[in-house]
Amino acid sequence: MKLTNNISLFFIALIFVSSCTQKSENENSFNADDMIIRISEIEIDSNYLEEYISILKEESEASVRLEPGVISIYPMFQKENPTEIRILEIYRNKDAYESHLQTPHFKHYKTTTLAMVKSLKLIDMEAIDEESMPEIFEKLAKNE
Amino acid sequence: MKLTNNISLFFIALIFVSSCTQKSENENSFNADDMIIRISEIEIDSNYLEEYISILKEESEASVRLEPGVISIYPMFQKENPTEIRILEIYRNKDAYESHLQTPHFKHYKTTTLAMVKSLKLIDMEAIDEESMPEIFEKLAKNE
Repeated sequence: MKLTNNISLFFIALIFVSSCTQKSENENSFNADDMIIRISEIEIDSNYLEEYISILKEESEASVRLEPGVISIYPMFQKENPTEIRILEIYRNKDAYESHLQTPHFKHYKTTTLAMVKSLKLIDMEAIDEESMPEIFEKLAKNE
Repeated sequence: MKLTNNISLFFIALIFVSSCTQKSENENSFNADDMIIRISEIEIDSNYLEEYISILKEESEASVRLEPGVISIYPMFQKENPTEIRILEIYRNKDAYESHLQTPHFKHYKTTTLAMVKSLKLIDMEAIDEESMPEIFEKLAKNE
């Protein structure tokens, strides 16, 4: 009987520990409903393209590395029209986006590139398959 | 002297093993120069939007899961204009893309949605920061 009690206690402890781990994982994870997903469409003055790309690359790398609220910033340009920039931007929530706008790296990007930008459209998007987002980006993150 | 020889042999073996591991990692990883990166811009007939989204979701999930050459397919719609679909598509190389077009799930998507599509533009993109791609998508993959 004592052994059975000990075994029961062991399993109760195990369930408790595993539920705590689960909770801490959930606290770290993002919530698809709160996320801001955007495609920015930016046209650059061709005289400044190289300079613009170098500043954007530095800013987006810093944002992902330094800001937990910046989930992803993926900048691209159109092959047939390299002055047409497209950026996939994913922020954890509205607060994370507001705080991103106040960072030194974003402010530096904004002020130094202002005169290089011919047009700018910020288009809010919604993901079609929110549950599969980790699987969708797994190979990219693992480089495999 | 014998001990020094043994230590040398141990380090030579260690370097050999680690270089083999490195090689196998590189064989699995993707090469940014070969990758096909695309944003598809698709306008859907509003009468079929729900049906289209359901078929697209199924097709893109299957592509990423079943095809090692499909690195990522991330479908979205514009919040203010939900019939405007945008899909970020990343294929390992041209062969992987050609083979994707021959899969049963892609063929099913293409034939069942043909009449629902009002316009379709396939825009080839280039990534601005190729080296940082794993870091850019790390939080999405880890759901953190």
